[in-house]
Amino acid sequence: MHSVSHYQEVISAHFSGLNIDKQPTNLYEPIRYILSLGGKRMRPVLTLMAAEIFNVDCQKALDAATAVEVFHNFSLIHDDIMDDAPLRRGNETVHEKWNINTGILSGDAMLILAYQYFESYEPIIFRALAQLFSKTALEVCEGQQYDVDFETRDDVTVLEYLKMIEYKTAVLVGAAMKMGAIVAQTSQENADLIYDFGLNLGIAFQLQDDYLDAFGDPKTFGKQVGGDIIENKKTFLYLKAIEFATTQEKEQLLHLFSIQPSDNTDKINSVKEIFTTSGASLATQEAIKDYTFQAFKTLERMNIETDKKTLLRAFGENLMSRKV
Amino acid sequence: MHSVSHYQEVISAHFSGLNIDKQPTNLYEPIRYILSLGGKRMRPVLTLMAAEIFNVDCQKALDAATAVEVFHNFSLIHDDIMDDAPLRRGNETVHEKWNINTGILSGDAMLILAYQYFESYEPIIFRALAQLFSKTALEVCEGQQYDVDFETRDDVTVLEYLKMIEYKTAVLVGAAMKMGAIVAQTSQENADLIYDFGLNLGIAFQLQDDYLDAFGDPKTFGKQVGGDIIENKKTFLYLKAIEFATTQEKEQLLHLFSIQPSDNTDKINSVKEIFTTSGASLATQEAIKDYTFQAFKTLERMNIETDKKTLLRAFGENLMSRKV
Repeated sequence: MHSVSHYQEVISAHFSGLNIDKQPTNLYEPIRYILSLGGKRMRPVLTLMAAEIFNVDCQKALDAATAVEVFHNFSLIHDDIMDDAPLRRGNETVHEKWNINTGILSGDAMLILAYQYFESYEPIIFRALAQLFSKTALEVCEGQQYDVDFETRDDVTVLEYLKMIEYKTAVLVGAAMKMGAIVAQTSQENADLIYDFGLNLGIAFQLQDDYLDAFGDPKTFGKQVGGDIIENKKTFLYLKAIEFATTQEKEQLLHLFSIQPSDNTDKINSVKEIFTTSGASLATQEAIKDYTFQAFKTLERMNIETDKKTLLRAFGENLMSRKV
Repeated sequence: MHSVSHYQEVISAHFSGLNIDKQPTNLYEPIRYILSLGGKRMRPVLTLMAAEIFNVDCQKALDAATAVEVFHNFSLIHDDIMDDAPLRRGNETVHEKWNINTGILSGDAMLILAYQYFESYEPIIFRALAQLFSKTALEVCEGQQYDVDFETRDDVTVLEYLKMIEYKTAVLVGAAMKMGAIVAQTSQENADLIYDFGLNLGIAFQLQDDYLDAFGDPKTFGKQVGGDIIENKKTFLYLKAIEFATTQEKEQLLHLFSIQPSDNTDKINSVKEIFTTSGASLATQEAIKDYTFQAFKTLERMNIETDKKTLLRAFGENLMSRKV
């Protein structure tokens, strides 16, 4: 086993050497571009890590890890079109730099390329990987559709929201780890357990994202604090606030989420105040702890060496104490 | 072996019973919609036909055939967005009936669903099907990109055009047939030969499309005759005309392909006149015959019963004598 930063270096080096230098240029150039923007590469790192947890050299999991990262970037291209987002990782989004049609078609090609990276594995492993990948990819699409649907609904429940972030974000974290387990040909039980570990950690991670978006320290948080509030996003914090709030607070919150002032300072402060007084803030922190705890409980049942459990636990704790 | 209409009925019945009744509705409803519009279902019919040519019940090839048709419809949804097309098979396109975002996301889901239909096959067949499918799907994307690129280029060669239609249209016809061969577990040689048969027939089919678009009988041709001319499309006819035309004809053709009159009657007639006098029309008919002949030559080398060769040949001849 190695450190997270080691796997990050392995993945980073692998992506630098990735050969996507094919024709036609207008199809493959946007693919090279989005993949060159980097990012944390968290998902492929988890695939490599999972492989070594189950005693296989992470090199063997590189192609599966590449598939996961290429798929993730496909979903970013198409999501950015749907969200009309101008920037991704501080750079122009693909549809901004080129156009929407290029974004659609290059994204399609990436989804197919992702499957091709599994072809280096023998038939039984190939099939297991491709099957898990298809199931996961479809769930990610479903999660994205729920997210779109929620924008125009005012009766979204906390349970529905949790299902949405599970599909849109967490299943790919679980699948990334399970792919490492599949490549390592560990037991079905271990593979299922590491999926659950990743899934719960992924949900905790997304809830943490919601929390930090409102309560993160502007000095350390990468994005604009209060971004979700400005966009009237129905996050876990918001839904919990609606659930817990007094009639008066609820009315105020609904009003605040119906306006779009030019200066958002007052709006952000008022909303955060309600998030805190209603108990939504505390409930979110509790939920993050709960899902992290669920992940750690799964860990205990896994049939692996104790030092590896310690490492995975440290990774989870590290992720949950993040400020960015 | 059965008749083409028999396989059409099998496919049609299968698609009627296809269960895509999943949640969220806004993701799966557009998928049900596009699949319900029907069409000739030529590609899946070819998969079933190929399976029986290699002595396996076509029922065994139904899932592979479904994958091919679902993929084809995915490409129609995304292409229609890119072409800003209002109608598909006489009905509203998906992005018109819903919106562009729905078209993108439902299309993505269909591409993934297509892979899932291979999961009913055992690992070795699954892998062979998925591998051929990925290669083909990527080529279809490349063909679509070439088609887009050609719109703004004025130096497209006949060879480039042939490669474009091969990728955009013909490879999927070849792959559809080869999938039947893979499911039937025939020899690699037979599988490769039926791919070539489909590929050449697919190119002939597309050239026939180009030809009929200009010279089809308005009474029998399904679409508006002269549609490609109205849209200034650089088809095989046009590129051959540019190649063969006298300096004067070429100048006239370039002029005609730079205007968009409100009444296209004169333009269509003048262009068709040049297509004929330049010899482009004849050259196109020759090319159609050549590719069909190539397909038939491949047939001769195939290790199958003579009556099956006769049937495939009849199918090809039928396709090439079509008026619609």
